Amino acid sequence: MKEIFNPKSIAVIGASRYKGKVGHDVFKNLLKSKKKVFPVNPNANKILGKKAYASVLDIKEKIDLAVIAVPADIVPNVVKECGEKGVKAVIIISSGFSEIGNKDLENKVIVIAKAHNMKVLGPNCLGVINPYQKLNASFFNKMPLKGDIAFISQSGALGVAVLDWAIQNKVGFSSFVSVGNCADIKIPDLVEYFGEDKKTKAICIYLESLKNGKRFMEIAKKIKKPIIVLKGGLTEKGQKAATTHTAALASSAEIYKGAFKQSGVLQVDNLHQLFEVARHYACCKIPTNKRGLIITNAGGVGVLASDAFEKNGLEIVELPEKIIKNLNKVLPKHWSHSNPIDIIGDATPKRYKDVLKIIEKERFYDFVFIALTPQTMTNPEEVARIVVRFNKKTKIPCFTCFMGGDAVRKAKKILKENKILNFKEPGYGAEVIAKMII
Amino acid sequence: MKEIFNPKSIAVIGASRYKGKVGHDVFKNLLKSKKKVFPVNPNANKILGKKAYASVLDIKEKIDLAVIAVPADIVPNVVKECGEKGVKAVIIISSGFSEIGNKDLENKVIVIAKAHNMKVLGPNCLGVINPYQKLNASFFNKMPLKGDIAFISQSGALGVAVLDWAIQNKVGFSSFVSVGNCADIKIPDLVEYFGEDKKTKAICIYLESLKNGKRFMEIAKKIKKPIIVLKGGLTEKGQKAATTHTAALASSAEIYKGAFKQSGVLQVDNLHQLFEVARHYACCKIPTNKRGLIITNAGGVGVLASDAFEKNGLEIVELPEKIIKNLNKVLPKHWSHSNPIDIIGDATPKRYKDVLKIIEKERFYDFVFIALTPQTMTNPEEVARIVVRFNKKTKIPCFTCFMGGDAVRKAKKILKENKILNFKEPGYGAEVIAKMII
Repeated sequence: MKEIFNPKSIAVIGASRYKGKVGHDVFKNLLKSKKKVFPVNPNANKILGKKAYASVLDIKEKIDLAVIAVPADIVPNVVKECGEKGVKAVIIISSGFSEIGNKDLENKVIVIAKAHNMKVLGPNCLGVINPYQKLNASFFNKMPLKGDIAFISQSGALGVAVLDWAIQNKVGFSSFVSVGNCADIKIPDLVEYFGEDKKTKAICIYLESLKNGKRFMEIAKKIKKPIIVLKGGLTEKGQKAATTHTAALASSAEIYKGAFKQSGVLQVDNLHQLFEVARHYACCKIPTNKRGLIITNAGGVGVLASDAFEKNGLEIVELPEKIIKNLNKVLPKHWSHSNPIDIIGDATPKRYKDVLKIIEKERFYDFVFIALTPQTMTNPEEVARIVVRFNKKTKIPCFTCFMGGDAVRKAKKILKENKILNFKEPGYGAEVIAKMII
Repeated sequence: MKEIFNPKSIAVIGASRYKGKVGHDVFKNLLKSKKKVFPVNPNANKILGKKAYASVLDIKEKIDLAVIAVPADIVPNVVKECGEKGVKAVIIISSGFSEIGNKDLENKVIVIAKAHNMKVLGPNCLGVINPYQKLNASFFNKMPLKGDIAFISQSGALGVAVLDWAIQNKVGFSSFVSVGNCADIKIPDLVEYFGEDKKTKAICIYLESLKNGKRFMEIAKKIKKPIIVLKGGLTEKGQKAATTHTAALASSAEIYKGAFKQSGVLQVDNLHQLFEVARHYACCKIPTNKRGLIITNAGGVGVLASDAFEKNGLEIVELPEKIIKNLNKVLPKHWSHSNPIDIIGDATPKRYKDVLKIIEKERFYDFVFIALTPQTMTNPEEVARIVVRFNKKTKIPCFTCFMGGDAVRKAKKILKENKILNFKEPGYGAEVIAKMII
């Protein structure tokens, strides 16, 4: 697998002089890496200033990885030449295989590759990106940010959209892999690889179907890192769409759900949750149980948070008598006297601090959910720093829900720099927390 | 009600020289309006350069509206003076009334106000903002953008957070009202008022409890504009939090749900949906039924959209034979041959155009959901313009889901300028569409 994510030398077979061609884009992206990159194209002398080769066999240097972007019917011969050359792994970007019913052609390619002991990613995939290696062996034309999340996508196009979104939203990746038809390298192989990969703290998968569910479960159980899956094709109509898409039968929702649960895989409901859960795992301390303590300076936010907690199966823990008594000493008379701890709209940062001080040595709760709306007396940045200190000192998992726009922008930055991620609103926040715990 | 949202002259009773005091902030905000504004404070000669009056009775000019921000126990006397002065309406920002059990004090104030034929908003509220009048009779320190949405909030602090968020996200309002304890002016009164208000196209409400549900239902049925409600306190824990918050008993979720449905009120699940639904109603054509047609250049997005449609009760309509035949003529051989219409990752803008051309005169569907991921061949701006033309020509409701970051930024702008709102991802998109139709 090393040759896929960290090759020393790469041939691009089907490299093209013409902008907009996949073979052009892949080659151009690879030129930005510090690898040795060789264009293969029998009809060109030079591509983007580099000498072009008629065949991979004409290249004198050793080749670790070949990226193939030629018409499907030529692929078997190209793969054969790669084998003869001693290439260790190939990424087949070309489409026109099992996804449109050409199962035989796909099998033929795999048989050739196996005979030469080559690993194959794809066919019908977008390729691979490793930001730490500045390696972009795909036709996505930007370099994602470095980060802790490995993202495996069974849809190339969806992958492109996510990568583009992630750049704008400053979400970084350890690697991105578009798996295509999974003819050889399958999702469990990649999960196993990222389980060992030092840069990866969380593994995100957009999954439509598994070819070997049992193996996936075995590996998922073994891996110590969080695996977060968005399963497409859970409903009847979604399954139908998945069948026309990857020509693989998406099995029943319940079977997947059970299997994920058994093997400790976190299943999420949408793309937002996929990356929110992954970012939390990659960055923050995750609660081990569901007893939540809510602190808010806005009654309405406390109400919405309570609804959302209950709806998502999180527990709004009862306040012990002792805690209520201690809170009475520091809070105004009309505080809520229960969880959510409503410290009232005129709360100063000190009021947040006093409450956190009282609960910092207690263990009647598993995590704290700190909501703030930008009121005159409530300096958001100061509250952010108080939350950061509490989180550092106690190691108690903290989630925040600082609501608003410009008024909480700086505070959210302080939180993020200190590994506390903020939820825009309590509703989606509770959904994400529940996905991580329950 | 006119005196609340469009007064000619305003007295701020409890206006203060000291920054951070509510009476200071309200007065400062009001000075920015083009109204006559008079500070009332017996301990000051001048406030922010304006002559201060010891009592509202000392002001010579007529006063339409008084905004009251004095301690609760002084409020009855202040309201009495307002009555004697002939003030038409008062906004009582002061807290310390029924929300903390002081029901008698609240009743006393209302009896005095009624005796003088004055309307009362509050007590315990944030105030009122009317961007079209540049009127900010609240202690929120920014002016929201002008827009089509009237926002009624039963939580002042939540209101602040939403207003601040809305400025950043360019969501505009016709008016904002924080209702506080609803001692006199109640939510149905406001709904009735906004039903007639020319600037208002949609009415958003954050609601914890209704004092007169029957009246709300009657008015909601009568109003021709969409009323969208986020009901806080739907769960047992949420109800409990709402009780400590507004001291009003939040009734059972099912009763509210039934009442909303009967009276044509759209109930949403979270703040995101509240404003997404409102923005769509204020801006776009809303489908009258649930038969959706999905067009996508990404199989994975089609799968996720199908799952989300089915989960949310939207129908993924079957393609008539005739349509399939016509699509066969313009699409590559391996298109999905069913709904979602997957026009494949190498789709050009022309392919979107061809598909839309084929369906433009058909009525087997109620709305179209057009997804796009930023692929090399798919120019997002061009597709956006094609969608805009289709929408203008046919009046068929269009939703888009152009996914990604910078690559789709301009396209999303084109869509928005032409009254087509984009969803970030199919999951939340389907939720919002379902809330509008079902």
